[in-house]
Formats: sequence, structure tokens, C-alpha cells
Amino acid sequence: MTTESPIPVVVNGAAGKMGREVIKAVSGLSDMMLVGAVDRNPQYRGQDVGEVAGCGPLEIPIVDDLQSILVLATQEKVQGVMVDFTHPDGVYENVRSAIAYGVRPVVGTTGLTTEKLQDLAEFAEKASTGCLVIPNFSIGMVLLQQAAVQASQYFDHVEIIELHHNQKADAPSGTAIKTAQMLSGLGKTYNPASVVEKETIPGAKGGLVGDNIRIHSVRLPGLIAHQEVIFGAQGEIYTLRHDTSDRSCYMAGVLLCIRKVTQLQSLVYGLEKIL
Amino acid sequence: MTTESPIPVVVNGAAGKMGREVIKAVSGLSDMMLVGAVDRNPQYRGQDVGEVAGCGPLEIPIVDDLQSILVLATQEKVQGVMVDFTHPDGVYENVRSAIAYGVRPVVGTTGLTTEKLQDLAEFAEKASTGCLVIPNFSIGMVLLQQAAVQASQYFDHVEIIELHHNQKADAPSGTAIKTAQMLSGLGKTYNPASVVEKETIPGAKGGLVGDNIRIHSVRLPGLIAHQEVIFGAQGEIYTLRHDTSDRSCYMAGVLLCIRKVTQLQSLVYGLEKIL
Amino acid sequence: MTTESPIPVVVNGAAGKMGREVIKAVSGLSDMMLVGAVDRNPQYRGQDVGEVAGCGPLEIPIVDDLQSILVLATQEKVQGVMVDFTHPDGVYENVRSAIAYGVRPVVGTTGLTTEKLQDLAEFAEKASTGCLVIPNFSIGMVLLQQAAVQASQYFDHVEIIELHHNQKADAPSGTAIKTAQMLSGLGKTYNPASVVEKETIPGAKGGLVGDNIRIHSVRLPGLIAHQEVIFGAQGEIYTLRHDTSDRSCYMAGVLLCIRKVTQLQSLVYGLEKIL
Amino acid sequence: MTTESPIPVVVNGAAGKMGREVIKAVSGLSDMMLVGAVDRNPQYRGQDVGEVAGCGPLEIPIVDDLQSILVLATQEKVQGVMVDFTHPDGVYENVRSAIAYGVRPVVGTTGLTTEKLQDLAEFAEKASTGCLVIPNFSIGMVLLQQAAVQASQYFDHVEIIELHHNQKADAPSGTAIKTAQMLSGLGKTYNPASVVEKETIPGAKGGLVGDNIRIHSVRLPGLIAHQEVIFGAQGEIYTLRHDTSDRSCYMAGVLLCIRKVTQLQSLVYGLEKIL
Repeated sequence: MTTESPIPVVVNGAAGKMGREVIKAVSGLSDMMLVGAVDRNPQYRGQDVGEVAGCGPLEIPIVDDLQSILVLATQEKVQGVMVDFTHPDGVYENVRSAIAYGVRPVVGTTGLTTEKLQDLAEFAEKASTGCLVIPNFSIGMVLLQQAAVQASQYFDHVEIIELHHNQKADAPSGTAIKTAQMLSGLGKTYNPASVVEKETIPGAKGGLVGDNIRIHSVRLPGLIAHQEVIFGAQGEIYTLRHDTSDRSCYMAGVLLCIRKVTQLQSLVYGLEKIL
Repeated sequence: MTTESPIPVVVNGAAGKMGREVIKAVSGLSDMMLVGAVDRNPQYRGQDVGEVAGCGPLEIPIVDDLQSILVLATQEKVQGVMVDFTHPDGVYENVRSAIAYGVRPVVGTTGLTTEKLQDLAEFAEKASTGCLVIPNFSIGMVLLQQAAVQASQYFDHVEIIELHHNQKADAPSGTAIKTAQMLSGLGKTYNPASVVEKETIPGAKGGLVGDNIRIHSVRLPGLIAHQEVIFGAQGEIYTLRHDTSDRSCYMAGVLLCIRKVTQLQSLVYGLEKIL
Repeated sequence: MTTESPIPVVVNGAAGKMGREVIKAVSGLSDMMLVGAVDRNPQYRGQDVGEVAGCGPLEIPIVDDLQSILVLATQEKVQGVMVDFTHPDGVYENVRSAIAYGVRPVVGTTGLTTEKLQDLAEFAEKASTGCLVIPNFSIGMVLLQQAAVQASQYFDHVEIIELHHNQKADAPSGTAIKTAQMLSGLGKTYNPASVVEKETIPGAKGGLVGDNIRIHSVRLPGLIAHQEVIFGAQGEIYTLRHDTSDRSCYMAGVLLCIRKVTQLQSLVYGLEKIL
Repeated sequence: MTTESPIPVVVNGAAGKMGREVIKAVSGLSDMMLVGAVDRNPQYRGQDVGEVAGCGPLEIPIVDDLQSILVLATQEKVQGVMVDFTHPDGVYENVRSAIAYGVRPVVGTTGLTTEKLQDLAEFAEKASTGCLVIPNFSIGMVLLQQAAVQASQYFDHVEIIELHHNQKADAPSGTAIKTAQMLSGLGKTYNPASVVEKETIPGAKGGLVGDNIRIHSVRLPGLIAHQEVIFGAQGEIYTLRHDTSDRSCYMAGVLLCIRKVTQLQSLVYGLEKIL
């Protein structure tokens, strides 16, 4: 494998919101080459994927047959990568197909069960093919979570505030819950009480996750997606905050994965494993 | 009344935490003159109040007889002021005594019932004597609350986050509740839902006060006393935040009250009335 | 004039970034009626303005002749309003034309000289026609500036931090300079030094505006448009912050102006005058 | 060495601001034992160090002869530790004396030249005695700096805001400069410009440190000591913030050093080396 040839990239789910961002991000780079775009939405079939993504014509039509495109990705000097932002019900088959063709999957689609994930891991292992399954492509959020885990060795007190636009129905956010679980998984009980607490209005103190970590969810129009982890100790506060303003923020993570997956021989889960 | 003579000031509760701050603040000014210090704690009786407050000797001993000191405050050219930071069970009598002597009370002691407050208002009215009863001397907090009320005319969405050290037992803070009530008192229902909300962890969305305002209470060592009012609308967020680092922050409000009370002829409740 | 008929609205500069937002905002309301769309960019001529704005067909073609559209705005029961987001070189004529037709201008276009503004004010006065010239339609920012002016009566120390994306070339932002000038205009010298200051790295202490107010400009990708005014006093900090995430945040101000201009008989400059 | 015997601790500079905090922190622990207190200020000679520190009598008088106290620290089962918060002109001798007695130094005193530091390192090496020289005992700040270094691998854009009370004369703060230098030392040029920048008011864009990192220094009464490192990338912002409210925040770091220094055989510089 020579590093001089660009990596052939196939985007599955190319007409979706994330797919379009990937098309825009990949098409502007010299070390990657977009070789095909797949989307099962009939509305976009045959359209130029660059036009759909809003970055000008790329002369690559959107098709609905993944296999024919995987073939294209195997005809270059270097092994290809399939980026998948599709649907929970199809992602398992997509990943098996890609691995069968020797194309390495970078999977952003959520909804794979533990069993299917395990099965795909075995399949990738046997084929010695790299595969990345990534629930959150935000490098900034992973850095925040790693820094929080590091800080938790020295701070016994921590709370989380997450703030999102008021179109977000569920509270707390999945990412805030995951952050709390990462901290709790370290086998520590946080926030030992120093007074008898009295919550005069139910809910004021927030929701409890894991081993005594409070999460506070703020929902307002005008907010986008924000998370704050606040550590406190005698005389000091240490705050980690991540603010997302649009989906483009995930592209640095996607591109990193495309470059890294070609160096792997098995399935890896989570962006934190390759940072 | 001439503005050139300094205002005679009596401090009642002079050995308490707030009383000491008042001693320090008043003793350094040229437009005020400390004439007496009262405290019913026998431990400090006879000690120099400046030494107790930590600002060097003032040659004013702490005594326990308020009346004798009120007499002193009436022997100057201009009318005197009594600052009272004592106890709920004595404050009513203290204020009546001061008014009876023609000394104007500035009261920071909490716990006066509505009936007693009404009674004192009538007493001050009859005597044409100014009297200020102030639950919160923080000018910054009053400015925040006024700005929040102003903003609530244009924003329909608002949440409050208050953050305090973990020695504070009750949540939410009284000041946060008051802020929410001030906004609710304007006859508006805040935060109309735009989706069906789902709180998967109880308390995550905070405590409800007034007409649909959420308060979130964070408790960590290292925090002091902080309040944030966050307004949201399509495409924008407007945030008002107040941070307190020590009791000295109340002194600007206390001094303002000492100067203003001499211009009043009746009882006024709340710092916002004189800003 | 009856309040039940919707206000006829003409948008001049309808295909521009702000114009499109106005089209979207006005077309969804029952108390306003879009009657015409003007844009001098030939690319959009004849196209449905709703399609161009991205809110679906409205059956109103974009034309380039303002006068013919102003006529339309005068044929309804209530007086019409022209919203102008065009170019500095044409705005003066646009406003004169609108007033001549009895259509009330709401002007977001910048670049009117003081002389032309004065001339338009006289013209509106003679015609007894309301006219609003608004350099910044953000209600949140005006509220922030008003709250800052209010706070400046009680705080002697203040600094401003403004944060924008790194595509913004100039520093400080015009809005931050205006905020500093509003505070300075109150005839006060801020930030009296309490120590001999030593700036070991030039620029660290920020840029000086007005009477000793420091502005700090942060430029980073990922930021959008943010301003923070921080007041400090002994033991307390009072912070006002405004965050803008997209142009839609100006629409509440534009709509308020459309409703208010019909109640005016002269030219008014600045959103703060009608809040 | 058994872990069950408490570590004998000598505090040099015991009557200073930091020394008093150390006395308070050490005297309340069961795994440490205060054996002596030294201060060259004659005002405190002979006084009970607990009374001076404000934590009640400890029956340990403050003396001015370090050597006699170092002897005491060698008479316990486990090796002793000397905490030194004294003066630049005496610290070198203090550390040599301690090492000569087999007492391990934890040095918070600043001002050691590179040559003297090198000399002490050789001395400690020969004696196989642990010695910690720590310019900043704040664990939170070290965590922030480490997290910033980690983030700098993935973010190309960063600015620093540091905020301190207006009694601090120099700007920027030494800690902010050090943070910028740590990031710059990684051999990267930060903040490549994407537009031609125009600073209309000198200083607005901040002071430049290292390889193109901007530092902004805010000075206001009411602030204490705060630092913010803000990373930006397309669509996201990652912020690390540290707030200090009083000197007690350094004690966790001091205690950690007392425990760690007994496991070392040489001189180590900087808290980050032992976290």
C-alpha cells in the first residue's frame, strides 16, 4: 500500500443530512477520492451527488445498489472505505457486504445490537479487515470525556449541565448520560454530602445518573448543543465545556476515521479508541 | 439638614459577620461617622469594635444596650441611622426603638412577619421617619432581576441556573426562587412546549417555579454563590449572570441605603425601590 | 385604521440573506400580508420569492421596479410598510420613494450618512409618516445594552469581550464598540487603576475605547457571534452575555418594527427607542 | 518503611499566607504529623503555630532555627518532609539542609535560578533523596494544561482568556503565559488566518505568545483568579476553564506532594510530573 494514492471512498446514505456533509468534506480533499454514492431514497436516484450535497457537480450519480459501488471501490490501488450513515435495519448487511468486498466500513449509523456488533467483530477479525463503529464523531466531545475521566482521579465532586434547543424531546441527552456513566464506571462514589440536603422544589437538584452524578438539562430555543462538566474541590472549580454549532463539526472525526480504518485489522468501537 | 455633616451611624449586631463588614465599610468614609456599636453576644462586650471587625482600633466599645446608643445618634447635627443585622426575635423592637428616637433604621435582619412589617410601616408613617427593610443588599443581583424583568417582555423562554457551595443545604436558593417569582408575577406563561417532552431521568429538567420556569441547582465545593438567568429565542440567547465572592459585595448596597434612608419619610421594602 | 386588516408588507432586497429571512418570517403571519418582493439582482427576476427564500411557493414574483410594488402596498385598507435590506447607494432613494407613496419604511440597510439621515427625517416629518432606521435588529442585544447602561450607574469597573468566527476581519466588532460608546457617553471614567499596571506582552490588556473601557476580541472557527459585558465591584461580578446563532434572531426585531412603524409620525433611529 | 506511621512534616515559612494554610491542612490528617514550624519573622517567634494559623492550639511553637527542627523530623520511624514557602534568597540553603538531614523537601518557594535548581538536583541525586520543586500546586490547573496539550493535537485554533482581580499588576498572568508556551512547545503554528485581519483599535486582538497564541487579560475587582483556554474548529468550540477562589485550593496539591516525595529518589520539577 502506497500512501500516495488517494483512498477510494463510498458514501452510503449520501442524500441524508450527515451523508451530504461527508460528500462535501471528502470531495475537497486530495488524499481521498469519492468513487460512489448510494442512497435508497428514490427521490434522489440518478441525481449528481455534489448537487444534492450543495457543493457543485461531482459527476457521480446517486444509485441504490451498494454492491455495484463496492466493486468500484476495489478497483483502485489502495483499499477503499465505505462511510455508512443509513438506517438501523440495513446497517448490518451493509457492513457485511463491505467487508466481503474488502472495503473497510466507517459506521455512523446507530442501532446495532450488541449481538450483531459482536458478530460483525468476528467477521472483520476473520477477514483481517479494519472496521470502525462510531456512535459520536465529535473529536471535541471525546477529548472532553477523556479529560473528565482524567480529572475524576483528583476531584470527588462533579455535576453535568447539558443545554439543547427546545426541539430536543428527551432529557438528559444521551451524550450527557454517557459522560456520567464513563465517570461512574471508574468505581467511585461522587459528591459525598457534607450537609443534610433539602430539595424544596422537586427536580431542582437535577437527575441522578450512575454513582451519584447530577445532570441538569436546559431546553431553550436559540441553544444548539452544549455540555458542561463541572468539577469542584476546596477553593477551585474546573470546567470542561463543548459547544456544537452545526453538523460540520463531526467531519474532522469522520475524516480521521477514514484515514485510520485502513491501518486496522479488526473492528474498533468508539472514537476514543483511535485518538 | 446640611449635607456637609457626616451621617451618625449605629451598628446593631456589630460583632456578627455582616455587622463586622458594616463597621469596616462605614469607618473608612468621610460622609459617615460611626457613633456606636451594639451586640448582645456577651463575648464581645466592652471590646473595641474596630479590633473585633479587624480594621484596627476605633475607640468605640461594643455595648449591649441599644437605647443608650440611639441617644448618642440623636446628638449630632444630622439625623442618625441604625443598621440592624441581628436576630428575627429582636428586630421588631429594635426598629420601633430607633424610630421612637428619630433614628432611621436600615434593616438587613430577615424574619419579620408580614403583620409586623405592616405595623412598622404604619409606625414609620406616623413618625414621618424613613426606614428601609432590605432582604438582599446586593446591587448586582437587583440589577440582574430588573434586567430579567425587562427582558421577559420580549422573550417567552427562560430557565435559571443557580450554583452554590455544597455547604448550602436548601435547593433552590431563595434568591433564585424570588427571581422566578418576579418573572412569573408578570402574568405570562413561560416556555410553551414545542415537542412532547420526555424526562427519562427524574429531575433532569429541573424544578418548576411559578408559571413554568425551571430552576437548576448545582452544589459543589469551590463554588461560592452564583445565579444565571438564560433567555432563549429563535437564533439567540441572552444571559444574565451574578457571581458573589464574599460578603463585602453587600456593602455598596448598605452604604447606599444609609445615604438614601435619610431622604425618606416612610418604610420602603426592597433595594429595587431605591435604585 | 382598523387593527383587524393585516399590514401590507413590501420587501426590498428580497433575495439577499436578510431579505429571505424577512420573507419567511412575514409570510407565516396572519397580521401581515406580503404584497410584493423587489430585488435588483437580475438572477432572481421573475422567480417566486417563496421558492427563493426556501419556504415554498407564495405566488409573488421578484421584480426590480420598487415603485410599481409601492403602489400595490397603498391599495389595501391599512397603510403599507416597506422593509429595506438593500445597498448603501440606493437606500436613500428607496426611503424617499416609500414615504412619497405613503408607505412606511423599516430600514436595515446601513451606510446612510448623517446628512442623508437628517434629510430623510425632515422628509418623514413633513409627510407625518413613520420611518424606522435600525442599525441592529437584535432585541436581545438592545436589552443587553440597556441593562449595561443601567448597571453603569452602580459599577465603576467594566470590560467587554466579543467573540466571533475567524471569517470576521475587523476587530473589535462594531457592536462592541457601540456598547462601549454607550457606556462612555454617560460621562464617567471607568476602571480607575488601583495598582501600577504592567502589560508585559503588548495587547494583552485589550483595546481601549471611549473613557477607559477595554475590549477583547476573540476570533475562532466554531464561534458565531457573542458579546459579554462584565462589570466588577468589591466581592461581585455582574455579566451580561448575548449569543447569536443565526440571522433568524433578527426577525423578532423586524416584525416588531413593522408593527410599530405604523403608529409613528416621524423618523426614529435605533431599536432601543421603541422597546 | 511502613505506611502505618504518619509522615513527620516540618513547615518552613509557617507564618506566611501559604504556610498557615499548610499548617491547617496537615494538622487535621491522620497520615501526617506536624513536628515543627519555622518562620524567620520575629513577630511570631514562640507563638503556637496553630493559633497563628487560626486552627486552634497545636502546642508547637514557631521557631527560627530550621536545623533544630530538621533534627526532630529525623527521629520518627518514617522519613520526614519539609514544606518550604519562604523567600527566594533562602530557599537554596533550606533545601540543601533538609537533604543533608535526610528530610525530603517539597518546595513552593519561587525564584530558584536554573543553575541552583540544577545544583540541587545533583545534590538530591547523590543523596538518593526525593525532592519536589513545584511552581504551581493547583491540581486543577495542571489537569487543564494537560487536557489543553491533548486537545492541541486535534485543534489548530486556540485563544486564552485570563481574568484576575484588579490588584494584579502584571498582564498576562504567568500561568497563562506558561499554558501558551506548553501549547507552542509542541512545534505547531496555531491560528492560521483565513481573512486579512484588521485591528482597528490596538490591542483588541490580545497579546501574542509563542507560536501565534492570543492571550486576553481581564482585570476587575470581584474577580479572583480564572483562566479559560478556548479551542475552535469548524462547527465546534471546546473550552477548558479553571476558577480559583482561595489559597486552600493549593492544599490538595501540597498534600499529594508530601505523600509522593517519600517515594522519590531524585529532584522532580512540576506537579504535572507526579499526577
